[in-house]
Amino acid sequence: MKYSYLGPSGTFTEAALLQVPGAREADRLPAPSVPAALQSVRAGETDAAMVPIENSVEGGVSATLDAIAAGDELRILSEHLVPISFVLAVRPGVVLSEVRGISTHGHAWAQVSEWVSAHLPESDYFPAGSTAGAALELSRGEAPFEAAVCSPLVAEQLGLEVLAENIGNVADAVTRFILVGRRGQIPAPTGADKTTLVVPLPEDRPGALMDILDQFATRGVNLNRIESRPTGQGIGSYFFSIDVDGHIHEARLAAALRGLHRITTVVFLGSYPRADGLPVAVQPHTSDEAYRSADEWFKTL
Amino acid sequence: MKYSYLGPSGTFTEAALLQVPGAREADRLPAPSVPAALQSVRAGETDAAMVPIENSVEGGVSATLDAIAAGDELRILSEHLVPISFVLAVRPGVVLSEVRGISTHGHAWAQVSEWVSAHLPESDYFPAGSTAGAALELSRGEAPFEAAVCSPLVAEQLGLEVLAENIGNVADAVTRFILVGRRGQIPAPTGADKTTLVVPLPEDRPGALMDILDQFATRGVNLNRIESRPTGQGIGSYFFSIDVDGHIHEARLAAALRGLHRITTVVFLGSYPRADGLPVAVQPHTSDEAYRSADEWFKTL
Amino acid sequence: MKYSYLGPSGTFTEAALLQVPGAREADRLPAPSVPAALQSVRAGETDAAMVPIENSVEGGVSATLDAIAAGDELRILSEHLVPISFVLAVRPGVVLSEVRGISTHGHAWAQVSEWVSAHLPESDYFPAGSTAGAALELSRGEAPFEAAVCSPLVAEQLGLEVLAENIGNVADAVTRFILVGRRGQIPAPTGADKTTLVVPLPEDRPGALMDILDQFATRGVNLNRIESRPTGQGIGSYFFSIDVDGHIHEARLAAALRGLHRITTVVFLGSYPRADGLPVAVQPHTSDEAYRSADEWFKTL
Amino acid sequence: MKYSYLGPSGTFTEAALLQVPGAREADRLPAPSVPAALQSVRAGETDAAMVPIENSVEGGVSATLDAIAAGDELRILSEHLVPISFVLAVRPGVVLSEVRGISTHGHAWAQVSEWVSAHLPESDYFPAGSTAGAALELSRGEAPFEAAVCSPLVAEQLGLEVLAENIGNVADAVTRFILVGRRGQIPAPTGADKTTLVVPLPEDRPGALMDILDQFATRGVNLNRIESRPTGQGIGSYFFSIDVDGHIHEARLAAALRGLHRITTVVFLGSYPRADGLPVAVQPHTSDEAYRSADEWFKTL
Repeated sequence: MKYSYLGPSGTFTEAALLQVPGAREADRLPAPSVPAALQSVRAGETDAAMVPIENSVEGGVSATLDAIAAGDELRILSEHLVPISFVLAVRPGVVLSEVRGISTHGHAWAQVSEWVSAHLPESDYFPAGSTAGAALELSRGEAPFEAAVCSPLVAEQLGLEVLAENIGNVADAVTRFILVGRRGQIPAPTGADKTTLVVPLPEDRPGALMDILDQFATRGVNLNRIESRPTGQGIGSYFFSIDVDGHIHEARLAAALRGLHRITTVVFLGSYPRADGLPVAVQPHTSDEAYRSADEWFKTL
Repeated sequence: MKYSYLGPSGTFTEAALLQVPGAREADRLPAPSVPAALQSVRAGETDAAMVPIENSVEGGVSATLDAIAAGDELRILSEHLVPISFVLAVRPGVVLSEVRGISTHGHAWAQVSEWVSAHLPESDYFPAGSTAGAALELSRGEAPFEAAVCSPLVAEQLGLEVLAENIGNVADAVTRFILVGRRGQIPAPTGADKTTLVVPLPEDRPGALMDILDQFATRGVNLNRIESRPTGQGIGSYFFSIDVDGHIHEARLAAALRGLHRITTVVFLGSYPRADGLPVAVQPHTSDEAYRSADEWFKTL
Repeated sequence: MKYSYLGPSGTFTEAALLQVPGAREADRLPAPSVPAALQSVRAGETDAAMVPIENSVEGGVSATLDAIAAGDELRILSEHLVPISFVLAVRPGVVLSEVRGISTHGHAWAQVSEWVSAHLPESDYFPAGSTAGAALELSRGEAPFEAAVCSPLVAEQLGLEVLAENIGNVADAVTRFILVGRRGQIPAPTGADKTTLVVPLPEDRPGALMDILDQFATRGVNLNRIESRPTGQGIGSYFFSIDVDGHIHEARLAAALRGLHRITTVVFLGSYPRADGLPVAVQPHTSDEAYRSADEWFKTL
Repeated sequence: MKYSYLGPSGTFTEAALLQVPGAREADRLPAPSVPAALQSVRAGETDAAMVPIENSVEGGVSATLDAIAAGDELRILSEHLVPISFVLAVRPGVVLSEVRGISTHGHAWAQVSEWVSAHLPESDYFPAGSTAGAALELSRGEAPFEAAVCSPLVAEQLGLEVLAENIGNVADAVTRFILVGRRGQIPAPTGADKTTLVVPLPEDRPGALMDILDQFATRGVNLNRIESRPTGQGIGSYFFSIDVDGHIHEARLAAALRGLHRITTVVFLGSYPRADGLPVAVQPHTSDEAYRSADEWFKTL
């Protein structure tokens, strides 16, 4: 197996990839952007790509899903949660009192603001393209700063020393990543699955969104995430990026998808196990058994 | 073929039955009540029964449907509209100025109130169990009244003379009747059909009715008639008697029925041609073709 | 006070009227029909009218509400439940074995069918315009039947003897009546009220009814009764007769009514105490307090 | 007037700020992050802050709105659209064939991928914290790259030469910015307004989102944008970031907001003119006039 991922090496995205069984021994190719990581899958250069899926230090969910939906060849295979734990890394031998400049990605900088205010209030900030990039520049020895805010993984990979761990404002922060492969491989239902869809708004009027959501609610399908996105085709033209509970091989979800297909050109991006493993609560009247039983009853009429 | 109908002979119900092809030559048995007419079908004594289905001079829709739903053997086969036209009938030779008392059913009496106020303001009212009953009593010759308000049919059958036609307050009034047979005979779809259901309310809370209606609206199924009815099992326990556009052999209606079955114990009373012959308007996204196409799309995922 | 009611004297409707405090001593005028009873209120001849409101032995809910809504001068003031208890009444001295013919209203006849089958299977049925009418004819002494099925009240009033009590198929049957007065008198809220409305369907399309019900559901207003009724202005043109929980002086109901008024020409027929006295369950977020609090919050924005 | 904005100088955010009347002559303070820009308003150091509100080269809508909603002191005052036009900038005298390395923000890099593949397929990518940061490093003369992808504004400000204009994959891309001030200043309605809200999900079950959207749909309020966001308080706990058409001083929006307040703790972030100036289409039955008329009608009951 060969994997691509949003690089550079040592990012939280690589940490997510290392959760995939066998990935530690597999080829892992860093890509400069999410579209590039996906393109290598489309081109057959890699088998799957790990990319970030949430507004996090390294990317946004929508841009990622837009990139997957641009074409019909890709499917989400699994999702992965990675604890976002920041460390203050320095070159070996440097001590805290020597730190005058700190580099990291802008989002990471915002997320360690409280620790920095408390411990290094006088330090200067040097923006970097990624947390790993800041660490790399630091490790090369000619940077105009003495410390980098980065992941424990990259600090270890580059041989940097960690002066402080867990310096984020929010303890226990996690971010979400997805593994994306080529079409044709829908993972089997586990009872704890989610399904990702792209749903264009049929028309722009009060209630049009409700017609879409109604297709889910009528079948007892729970929403996990929804985000409206402009289509780029003018004011009032947008689509929805949606995650729902359940798997396409479950009857209620199959019915909802066919219902959506009748009113708009829904795009299916994948059914896959939830990273948190939480079983989906299914109301008795929307279970596969309820569907089977209704089908049988109908035949008797 | 043998038919039962709500009697006595000469009522509007018999006029409805005479609309059924072949009924004029068939056996027609008057029954003293709607339940009795239906019971003769259940017992196999007749093949079908004609009964009134609307609040009209001779009965109520709900009581009739309740009687059909009490058991699972009956199906509605067709509906029929009959113009409700009242005449003032007298024994041969009697003239208007001689009329001092008038008999008819209470509902009919209310419906001719304007004509009576204008032409016979001094007349006394003699209540009767049916319009035909009043005419029959008059024809026997010993009634304490000189005129009956009844249908043209019964006046003709009994040899009465008609002093005034069309004396109802509402010109062109029609009432609705249904032909009820035994289960197993669903008439083929015509494109202008309706379907009658009994739907218990799953629970009594704001929105529970909407959950039911949502099963129709989500599939673009239009409601024709709805009536809540107490179940007789205590306050807040009721069910709905519903007519919708369309035929059970159409995909959107089949889906709605199966959806209802999953949330409550819906009872199917029949799919049959509309008496008015008006084609059902089907939105493109809820046509049988849209359902087929969604099924095919789903298989490609 | 002067009252009209659907007569004749001795009906269950008069029994309902006797429940009204002071009615026993007041003038009570029987009217030949529901419209006539209401007309006497409109004309100022009586202060209020008691009329039946449910499909029962003596009338139908819809016809009654239609008659109230025909004009804007009337309001429902209260509702009343009356146990429907049938007796077999005969002239003094007649015994059961002498009964060969029985007279009563057609609906009542259906409701005592089981008792008659068991005890007088050979008897002939003589239709009558009302249960009280049958009893009256019997009491006059020249009827072609020996017994009448009627209410205990009328048997007592006419001096008939009761051979059997409680002979209805359904024990403990009750029926519902309403007291109707002139506009301007809305009874104060009691916490156990209902409100009766007439709501035209704005247009005939799937979902139009849901737009109406949504006005209630959004404000947590529970439906008690709903019935679609043809407007008489052509196929597909109809309105809804609706009872909801609550009083027009409660904020959520006031909001729902104003919302309905914006989309259709809703007619208000009255807010009045429920006959069963059952308190209306109000969800915390739809209480008057919740409305007040939202108004105050809004002012702070 | 004093303004803060997401810096550094020369970004598209500063270009947005320059659209504000008088801003060109006012004090404009660049801030290192969106939270920092907002904090200076909260602290009274500036009067308002311009920050990006869409997934764009310089930030994400959700993070920005989260930052505004963190506290109750801020209000959105206006929104602004800025054409996103990328140029390839070099130090004076450098020609295209000399460009071997290019620096820019990662999002911008993805957005110029097509031009780069066509014209500089061999070039190396140097990540930067912002497009302006890349240009600044280039202008200082010691960067390990020869070109920066940045805005026309920053190239001009820094005296860089533009080798190619409009090199983005999407022609005519625009991004959206908002001006945020302190509470107490709601701009007057213009007929072309939008309102931004933060709405927590009351509970996580199928249909809970529909209860929220229903508050809008019932009042004919159209949705512009919706995004679910995790609250950070565990799986299944999230809120919605929502833009709707209309102004809080319009009756239908006021009603929807009060309705939302009754079911959840909605947060109001501002009513302000739409950047595109497009008038909001108001259905007749949800106009201010319809609300007034319903209020008056209600008083007559």
